[in-house]
Parts: sequence; structure tokens; C-alpha cells
Amino acid sequence: MKHLLSIDDLGRDGIEDVCDLAESFLEVTQREIPKVPALRGKTVASVFYEDSTRTRLSFETAAKRLSADTMTFSVSTSSVKKGESLRDTVQTIEAMGVDAMVVRHPSAGAPHRVASWVDAAVVNAGDGRHEHPTQALLDVFTIRRHRGPDLDGARVAIVGDVRRSRVARSDALALAALGAEVTLVGPPTMLPESLAGWAATAASDLDEVLEGLDVIYLLRIQHERRDAAYFPSLREYTTRYGLTVERAARLAPETLVMHPGPMNRGVEIAPEVAEGPCSVITEQVANGVAIRMAVLYSILGSGTLMSGAGGSGIGGPGTGGSEGLETGAPDV
Amino acid sequence: MKHLLSIDDLGRDGIEDVCDLAESFLEVTQREIPKVPALRGKTVASVFYEDSTRTRLSFETAAKRLSADTMTFSVSTSSVKKGESLRDTVQTIEAMGVDAMVVRHPSAGAPHRVASWVDAAVVNAGDGRHEHPTQALLDVFTIRRHRGPDLDGARVAIVGDVRRSRVARSDALALAALGAEVTLVGPPTMLPESLAGWAATAASDLDEVLEGLDVIYLLRIQHERRDAAYFPSLREYTTRYGLTVERAARLAPETLVMHPGPMNRGVEIAPEVAEGPCSVITEQVANGVAIRMAVLYSILGSGTLMSGAGGSGIGGPGTGGSEGLETGAPDV
Amino acid sequence: MKHLLSIDDLGRDGIEDVCDLAESFLEVTQREIPKVPALRGKTVASVFYEDSTRTRLSFETAAKRLSADTMTFSVSTSSVKKGESLRDTVQTIEAMGVDAMVVRHPSAGAPHRVASWVDAAVVNAGDGRHEHPTQALLDVFTIRRHRGPDLDGARVAIVGDVRRSRVARSDALALAALGAEVTLVGPPTMLPESLAGWAATAASDLDEVLEGLDVIYLLRIQHERRDAAYFPSLREYTTRYGLTVERAARLAPETLVMHPGPMNRGVEIAPEVAEGPCSVITEQVANGVAIRMAVLYSILGSGTLMSGAGGSGIGGPGTGGSEGLETGAPDV
Repeated sequence: MKHLLSIDDLGRDGIEDVCDLAESFLEVTQREIPKVPALRGKTVASVFYEDSTRTRLSFETAAKRLSADTMTFSVSTSSVKKGESLRDTVQTIEAMGVDAMVVRHPSAGAPHRVASWVDAAVVNAGDGRHEHPTQALLDVFTIRRHRGPDLDGARVAIVGDVRRSRVARSDALALAALGAEVTLVGPPTMLPESLAGWAATAASDLDEVLEGLDVIYLLRIQHERRDAAYFPSLREYTTRYGLTVERAARLAPETLVMHPGPMNRGVEIAPEVAEGPCSVITEQVANGVAIRMAVLYSILGSGTLMSGAGGSGIGGPGTGGSEGLETGAPDV
Repeated sequence: MKHLLSIDDLGRDGIEDVCDLAESFLEVTQREIPKVPALRGKTVASVFYEDSTRTRLSFETAAKRLSADTMTFSVSTSSVKKGESLRDTVQTIEAMGVDAMVVRHPSAGAPHRVASWVDAAVVNAGDGRHEHPTQALLDVFTIRRHRGPDLDGARVAIVGDVRRSRVARSDALALAALGAEVTLVGPPTMLPESLAGWAATAASDLDEVLEGLDVIYLLRIQHERRDAAYFPSLREYTTRYGLTVERAARLAPETLVMHPGPMNRGVEIAPEVAEGPCSVITEQVANGVAIRMAVLYSILGSGTLMSGAGGSGIGGPGTGGSEGLETGAPDV
Repeated sequence: MKHLLSIDDLGRDGIEDVCDLAESFLEVTQREIPKVPALRGKTVASVFYEDSTRTRLSFETAAKRLSADTMTFSVSTSSVKKGESLRDTVQTIEAMGVDAMVVRHPSAGAPHRVASWVDAAVVNAGDGRHEHPTQALLDVFTIRRHRGPDLDGARVAIVGDVRRSRVARSDALALAALGAEVTLVGPPTMLPESLAGWAATAASDLDEVLEGLDVIYLLRIQHERRDAAYFPSLREYTTRYGLTVERAARLAPETLVMHPGPMNRGVEIAPEVAEGPCSVITEQVANGVAIRMAVLYSILGSGTLMSGAGGSGIGGPGTGGSEGLETGAPDV
């Protein structure tokens, strides 16, 4: 794997490999010293043309836990304000000695263009309304950890402004690749104009799809889009599509409640449900670090990972780890 | 010690323990390699809902000198702008693998609420007009280093907008706990409406309290509050409450001049006094790093600190330190 | 070398020493683990009163590759907004334990004043219209790497708003010190009012100086100055002073095309020329990290660098490097 630009780059096998690897890294993050020397000497740059503390910190934490150095390029304090082109910006960052770039950009396809301009590896951290592949990976990883690795036939509803959501698109692609049955739910103004390429069905009545769900995935309602009249009011949205306490009571007890964050409590999800026993929303965050470690390692690692034996290849607590350090960092 | 939310959490013994520990860390900061491996593998997040480069850098420097990793969450570039609740924000940050959060917030009590929501340790780095306990600790530490550990009967004047100052409140509490006699000085509009809970006396005429002072502590005048008519003008404030060259000449030679920074030179303190022989303002900054190392170590450390023998338990330059490294970081 | 405030601090020998040292560090940046322990335990603070992600990241990358700790002080989120003086700010930063400050400031001479107030070493990273010495060093380093160390008689044109450019001033000083013949090119409104102190000649017709050039150095046109009527329009600027494809065709094949970045493609340089075979613009960025490593090492290093034998004194991959680590970091 050179880049991670789209879920389609991975396919079913690739998704499962990253999830398997993330299991090892999740164990690393729970150690007393939650670090491995796997990417010592590598530099990972965050290149963010949209603010996102959440996603940026998750990637940077993942990089640090792998002993990589990090560099943050945020458009708000950058020469982009001076009119520099995206191409010149990323080539400049690369020239400083960067091995991988984590790119978030408001334009769909921007990470693909970056990948064509630099030799560094590129990870798409969200591009416009197009894709957000590491979010999809952490979401399927979270589901697998509760249901086991086989998602064939799992019933998943993705609820909200699906049409404008890169999370919905990437999640639907990943879930379909693993055999899950995805239903997109929202008012017609928020559903895709065509289902071509979605590998999913659509519904406008949430109450009709609630029963039998394995997962209900609530998308964030974008406040700034409220005026765009996709729906009459936040209150009406909550009435028809919010996961209220009443609706949650109709879910099977083992149904997983998921949300990519940040939540609008009381809009798309009731506070009691967000904190309830079915919610795995905080787990999604913790799993996000493990998934991003797995992605960065797959892209930048030495390829000598042994997936058995407790992940000794990525620096186990015993002899393997020490040897890895000696070999990997002779003079620093 | 799990959290540090208020000076009251510590009491006299606790304050003295932290100061004793800070002596060891002050020695560490003066070494050729000013670092110890005490918190290797721990992650300390700065969660700042108000801008404060000064306090944030002091905590982050302290964390790095203890070999902890740091993570900065600043509200100005965060999902808080998207309406996320404080609770969701701190639970998200914790889920990424944070051991301690240093919280600054404009609302009094916010760090207490954070502590009730997360398992991580919480340090109050300033909450509204309520408290700023590490500032008080570094201030008493600075006084102790000049006067010796016994502050019983020391006479301290705190001058300025005491009513709205979290620094004044925390300092008065800490000083009173150590037996000092504290006088709050300012125009009636800037003095507390009631002295209940302050363990201090109040005065409106600075010139009447100048003589016999061991410490004069100038608070910063907040420019943005000038219009609020707490006093007629900056010039009049300086005339009545500024530590001018003339007033400073009436202080005993060993009186300490202190200020939490950033200073308004020429308003609450004359430039000549700020740089004069009685000023320990720059020492306060240096001591701040040592105090914050002591606080973070008390909260996150292994508890095996040996306070005698030059701090060998926190990584002395001899054999103890090397052993600490071997034990603490087997595989990184 | 205590500080680097101006190219004049170095002279010909100093410039050549830094360039020679940078050769060793350039080799370090190309290693599998591009780091040396040379500045372990040192802290380098970026103190930036103007936004500049490019220069700041270059210095911070250089510091990290030398194993120094970094601290970023950016005026946009700082107590400067509260009215703190430059002097108090830098003395506060120093008191936290900083060994070197990299200072960018809109006022000419600000780094000199900082150097008079602190004991830490100071590197000028750009002060008003005055100087930008590390840019000049990386530029002459880049030229030397292509032409060999002898720049005597090399013909260099610096094209653009020379009068208001700290890059032009520092580059002209450095090039003249090394014996190059510098011609400043631009409309009269952009040329210095007097050539006193410039050690250069001036010309207003770019086409007359194109032939025989060894280096053509394009300055960035500042968009925000467009209204100041230094020239009628961007389009006219490009017609008369831009390095268009047509003009580039008249250059000798071995002429180097340089630009400090960020570029205005299509204004001072055509995109095809920026990416053409003569362009060394991306090399300038990579060389900038090596030069800044050399500057920081010259200021903060132990002085035991051995320039022969592949840079073993700065941490070669063999025995020297390991010994350096043992000696330099006994207890961390």
C-alpha cells in the first residue's frame, strides 16, 4: 500500500488486513508505555486545509505512538493565505523531509492530486463530500470488535445528510465490501440523487427500518447548512430522524449506536442515548488511533510485521522489541 | 493526589510537599540535559478554552522535561466552534489515550466538571474568576526560596483587581495556609464584596501598607475591563496603586516584588521596578516549570520518588537514573 | 558564533564554514534515520511575530533532526495581544529554559534588541525589510552545490521588489562576500534608492542582463502591495520582469533558476520554468533544513564537530555516534 486515498483502494482483503493489524496496535495503546519504535526516523505531516482538531490529533497521536516525528501544516497560519498553490505547498513540505502526508481538503479529489505531485505517501483525511477512508476503517473495526470479524448480512442504517457526507460514502463502501446490508436514511433532500455506486438501499422513514438493525449510525447535522432548507427546522429533523430515547427503546439490546462526532446532543441523538449502554461512540475514538497506527504502519513500515505472536514485529515488550530498537535507531 | 483543582485540595502539607518536590525538579531544569524519564509513555493534553501561551508553554515544557508526550487542544481551531459540548470534547480527547488534562476555561468550576466526566487526572490551569492553583504554588515556592520554608507571619500585599482575579484568590489561600498575613489592596470596586473565605484583610490605601511588607504582589490590570469604570483611568490607577519608583523606594530592601505576568509596564508597575534588584518576576517563570513538573509528577508518577539524596528517584545523573530508564521504557 | 543576526556577522569564512557544515547535515537528512543526538537536551523556541509556516517548519525540522526540543511562540495566540512588550515576552520565554530563539518580526532590528535582552542565542529569521540571513545561506549553499565552492565571478541577477526585500539584501551581501557579481533588477520604484552598502549594480531592463547569467533569482511579488502603485499591474510586471518561457529560453542551459517561495506562478515565474530542468527551487527548501541544522549546531553545539570522516562528530552511523549518545544523554 503506497497511499490511502479511497476505500476502493483496499477492497475486502485490504480492509480486513488493516483491521487485523489495528488489533495489535490497540493492544499497544493499552500498554503502560503505549509506544513502539516501528516508524522511528519517519516524519508524518498533517496538511489540513479545513480545521479538524479531532482528526488531526488522532493521526498525530498515532504517529507518535509509532515513534514517528510529526509536523503540522494548518492553512490558517500558512503561506496559502499568500496565494501559494496546493502543488507548491505540498512539494515544499515534502522537500523538508516528509515521508507521509495526511491531507484534509474541502475539494473532492485533492489528496489524489497531491499523490500525483509528491513521492511521499498520502493519506486522505477527508476531501470535500467525497471520502474519509480512515473514518470508515475505524467504524468497521469497531463493529467487528463487537460482532466478530464476519459482517456478512449485518444490517446497518446510516442516518442523516447522506448526500453531502464523506463519512456516509466511505462507510457505505467499506460495509458493502464486507458484506453488510446498508440502508441510507434521511429526508429526500438528504439522500443521494442516485444510488449508483452506493451498494446500499435508501429509506425516508427511520421508524420503518429500526427493527432488526445491528448498527445505527447517526451523521452529524451541519449547523451551517441549516439555512439551506434541506429540512424545515432542527426540531422537525429531530422529530423525524433523531435517535430519541423513544426510538432507541425500540432497538434490539445488542444494536450498536455510532456517531463520527462531534455530536449535536439533542438534535441527531439524545444525550441519554449517546451515553447509554448501546453507544460505542467513545470506543470509536480510541479505535481511531489504533486504525491510524495500522494505516501509517502499512504505508511506511518495514513490511516485516509478524501478525502472530502478539505483534512482536511491531515492538513487543520482550526481546523482539529491544532488538527492533537497536536495529532501527543505531545513532540517535 | 488524583487531581489539582483548587489550592484547598492540598492544604499546608500538600503545598509544602509540592514545593519540596519542585526543588528537585528545579535542579533537573538546570542540568546540561534538563530531562528525566519519570513520565515516559504518559500523555499530557493541554485543553485551553482561553488563549494563554505563557501558561500552556510552561505546562508543556514541564511535561517534556519529564519525558511525557504532549497534545494541544486549543478552542480556536477546534470542533467547539461546531457546537460540541465540553463533556464530549474532553471525553473524546481522553479516548485518544490521555493520562492528564491541563484545563483552562472561562467558567469557574469547569475543571471540576471535567474531572467528574473523565478518568484522566485534571489540573486546573485557571477557571474564570475562581482559581489558578499552580500559579499560587509557584508564587509560594518563589517566596520560600528567598525566605526559607517558614512563611509564618510573612506580610504579603496583593494589589489590584482582587475581586476578579483567580490569581489573587489562589495565592491568598495558599499563603494563608502557610501562615502568612495577607492584605488585599485596591479601590473598593476591586476588593471582594465580602472577605468571607479569603483569610485576609483588605485596605484601600497602598501607601499605608507599604512599610514592613515582605512581599508586594502586583496583579495585572486587564485593559479590556477599562471601560467598565472600576476606576476612572489607567493614569489614576497608577497614581494610587501602581508600584512606582517612589513607592518602591519606601519598601524594605529585602522585599520581594512579584507579578504573574504579562505586565503592563508603566501601569501597575514601573519598568525600573520590574527590572530592579527586588524583582523576582523572571524567577517566577522559571519556578513555574519546576512547580508544574512537581504537580504532574505527583499526579502521574509512580510514587517511588525518594525526596532525599538529590532526587535520585526522579532520575539522577548516576546509576539510579539509568536504571529508571531501563525499567520504565523497555521497548521504545 | 553566539548569534546569527546578519550576514555581516559571518563574513566570507563564516559563510563557507556554515556551508561546509551543512554538507554533513544534508547527508544526515538523507539517512534512513535522519537524526543525530547533537543537541539533545537543548530547547529551541520559534518566536514568530509574523506568520510563516514555511520558515518556522524548516527551523523546527532542523532542530528535531538534531534531537533538540522545540517550543513555538506565535503572536496570533499569545499575550502580545494583551499588550505585553517584546522584552517581557522574550525574557519570559527564556526563563522557561530556552537555549536559542529563532525570531521573526516585522520591525528591522528586532532580533538585535532581543539578543541584548536575553542570554539565549538568537537567530534572525527575518526582520522587516532588513535581513533574512539563513535564506541567504541556503541560497549560496544551493549555488555552491551546483557550481562548486568557488563563487568568484559568478553572475547573479536578483529580480523583483529589491528595495523592500530582506531576502534580496541578505542574498546580495552573502553573494558579494563570496566574490559573485550581483545585479539587482526591477523597475526604478523597486530598486534601492541608493546602492551604498549593497555591493551590487542595478538595472531596469531584465532582457539586457539575461545573457551570461549563472543564476537568476526571482523575488516574490507581494500581492498586498499591488495597490501601492509600484508598478501599473501584475500583467505589466510579468511582461517586463517575469521569467516567462520565452525569457527562460534565452538563458544558458546551466543557469540556475531560484525563488525563495512561496511563488506566484504566472506572475514572477512561469509554471513551466518553475518545474523546468534549470529550477532548483525545491532543492532550496531541502537545503534550508541542512543550513538551519548547521546554524543551530554552530550556535548551540559542543564545538567538537570533526568536519572530516563523514561527519562522525555529529553522530555518524558507526561507533562515533553511539558514543556521542552515551556521553550526551546519560540519564534520559
